[in-house]
Amino acid sequence: MDPRRAETGKNSDQIQSGHVYHLALDIGGSLAKLVYFTKNDEHIVGSEKKKSPVKASGISNSSRNSPVLNGRLNFKKFETSKINDCLEFINSMKLHLGGCQQPESPGSQTITIKATGGGAYKYADLFKEKFGISLDKEDEMDCLVAGANFLLETIHQEAFTYMGNQKQFVWIDKNDLYPYLLVNIGSGVGMIKVEGDGKFERVSGTSIGGGTFWGLGKLLTKCKSFDELLDLSYRGNNRAVDMLVGDIYGGMDYSKIGLSSTTIASSFGRAISENKERDDYKPEDIARSLLRMISNNIGQISYLTALRFGLKRIFFGGFFIRRHPFTMDTLSVAVNFWSKGEAKAMFLQHEGFLGAVGAFMSSDKHGLKELLANQKVERPPSKLSFSLDQTQVPQQDGELNGDESIECSVYGA
Amino acid sequence: MDPRRAETGKNSDQIQSGHVYHLALDIGGSLAKLVYFTKNDEHIVGSEKKKSPVKASGISNSSRNSPVLNGRLNFKKFETSKINDCLEFINSMKLHLGGCQQPESPGSQTITIKATGGGAYKYADLFKEKFGISLDKEDEMDCLVAGANFLLETIHQEAFTYMGNQKQFVWIDKNDLYPYLLVNIGSGVGMIKVEGDGKFERVSGTSIGGGTFWGLGKLLTKCKSFDELLDLSYRGNNRAVDMLVGDIYGGMDYSKIGLSSTTIASSFGRAISENKERDDYKPEDIARSLLRMISNNIGQISYLTALRFGLKRIFFGGFFIRRHPFTMDTLSVAVNFWSKGEAKAMFLQHEGFLGAVGAFMSSDKHGLKELLANQKVERPPSKLSFSLDQTQVPQQDGELNGDESIECSVYGA
Repeated sequence: MDPRRAETGKNSDQIQSGHVYHLALDIGGSLAKLVYFTKNDEHIVGSEKKKSPVKASGISNSSRNSPVLNGRLNFKKFETSKINDCLEFINSMKLHLGGCQQPESPGSQTITIKATGGGAYKYADLFKEKFGISLDKEDEMDCLVAGANFLLETIHQEAFTYMGNQKQFVWIDKNDLYPYLLVNIGSGVGMIKVEGDGKFERVSGTSIGGGTFWGLGKLLTKCKSFDELLDLSYRGNNRAVDMLVGDIYGGMDYSKIGLSSTTIASSFGRAISENKERDDYKPEDIARSLLRMISNNIGQISYLTALRFGLKRIFFGGFFIRRHPFTMDTLSVAVNFWSKGEAKAMFLQHEGFLGAVGAFMSSDKHGLKELLANQKVERPPSKLSFSLDQTQVPQQDGELNGDESIECSVYGA
Repeated sequence: MDPRRAETGKNSDQIQSGHVYHLALDIGGSLAKLVYFTKNDEHIVGSEKKKSPVKASGISNSSRNSPVLNGRLNFKKFETSKINDCLEFINSMKLHLGGCQQPESPGSQTITIKATGGGAYKYADLFKEKFGISLDKEDEMDCLVAGANFLLETIHQEAFTYMGNQKQFVWIDKNDLYPYLLVNIGSGVGMIKVEGDGKFERVSGTSIGGGTFWGLGKLLTKCKSFDELLDLSYRGNNRAVDMLVGDIYGGMDYSKIGLSSTTIASSFGRAISENKERDDYKPEDIARSLLRMISNNIGQISYLTALRFGLKRIFFGGFFIRRHPFTMDTLSVAVNFWSKGEAKAMFLQHEGFLGAVGAFMSSDKHGLKELLANQKVERPPSKLSFSLDQTQVPQQDGELNGDESIECSVYGA
């Protein structure tokens, strides 16, 4: 078991006492994401014993003979390069015991788990050999879109804008959500035009993504982790590394074309003319410059792509963002700059878990969407509660960037 | 005087024996570019002595009482960080003696030279103090566009495509040249929609340009020059540094969305998962990855921008390219990929000197355009001849990337 789990608070206790119902994985190039359900023992609601939320809202439960379980949807991530830690966590938490038997071999004890991302292919044999777990592969884009649609349609305060240190929740009208551009920033960046449930197309992307930030950052600084690099960037100044318009114009603006003296003319361009080596630069300045370069580029290509397909809304997801204020601010400023104020960048609370949520939902037996959608009808929107994970760096806006959980209900098997 | 000049061949002799007529400068963030005219003494054509090319084509010469001088337009570059070398060269070649007197002070001996780029502002005082040269500043975009239009309209075999090691000259119909997108890749990248002479708008750009390639390259390798880094990239393999689709998918394609296993998923993403430091990677692999990352990104943004404004032709200029086959190939492949074969990247022979040529032409007294345009009528198109510069790395397609000259005629003052 992950020793850090023992130190966590209320949520950790819930996990330990609760019975794991379901698990799904999204194994990307950099991170493996887990979504799993734990029920609250005190809240077991048998379909016969108590009016379920679904029944309460007047929807027939005839097609579902299963009990409705109240509990939590939990989110957890591991570095893909440490995939064994992920396996160890699953094993120690007995998460795989909640997996379903393969229908084609009802007699056998083969456990299958919904999984997506390239790692669902790459690590299939490893899961099989080590724990006898069979990965039931779901398409990456299908899961990403299903996860984003579900979160945007169902979870209150899922979407927000962030600019100038101002976070503002966006009310999503699910009847006016589509079409939108989903920009998923993982190791690389995928851009998907989403027109509805299961109706989408990958229309663009860029190889300059989170993997570029962390890969280049690793080669240029002595940082040991992505989070350390991100944290460094918060304290840095890109002027030490970038060539600004003012550097070329002797401190002046190039006002004729609307470029101020502080506009970045060339990312890392200042390193050209200085007789400095890598270690003569402050790592925080390098981190800042990298972050601005990559965020700005993603913002620009996203806007151009949205424009190309006539999409007014751009949602950014993926683990690169990590609710890092400066990253969100740069993406927002880029979209604002290139669109001349006409488009706005929006972010998702569960940015890093879109694919994993989608994989979780791909098994429709638990009726998560149906039940959560109905919960919205009869009671205040789902509360987001964050479990404390001391290993995470607290973010500027006071929120935690760690593992989380959402209160929810699902059908028993 | 630049000692290397003494080693050069025919063209060098011409410069030394010829009288310098005119000089213009384009001083960017990384490079200072010079364009200057030298006449061939044996070809002096007095307006009274011999039928000039203009007269031969039947155009009246009444507004010009000056003699027509035959000679060469010469191209030369210096690193901006070594601006004193540039001043030294101008002084030793007495190029500034061809500058014109300021009209507002006819009695004084102040010499003015047409200059553009940020350095025309930044180094104005230096030119004044050191040699009493006054820089007559011309707008950067004006010059860039004027230079590109002139070269495309007038010089035979100025434009070409390059893909799969195949160079193909493009015949330009000057009546069907506009509109086009001009992508100037200097330290940063500017993208200009050109609709005609003096009719243009800077519509986009990116800070990820030549300065990023050389700046990051300098911090990541032990290269001492841009050309060395470019040369290294030719021998490298980006697979050692980049995360490919196959790395995520266990060697498989992600065929559903048309990504082959060798597509770059994340530039520098492989550095994430390996326990390697900067010096454990081959510098040529890093150089190759950097070049692909930057060229591909420029190609993508260029295509999206061209699409946005309905521009069918994209011309790439600026000193980043340096007729480097791999750079041109990557830009071409990117434009081809993102446009699904509908758009083609085109390049200019005098890619790095667009702004300097434009600055040269901004003084209309020499009638360069008029004379060259008429030369096309009465004789085979202007021959491009390249002077040998031993310090330049020979390029893959057998051409030289050094200083050059074009045979041409101008009016005497």
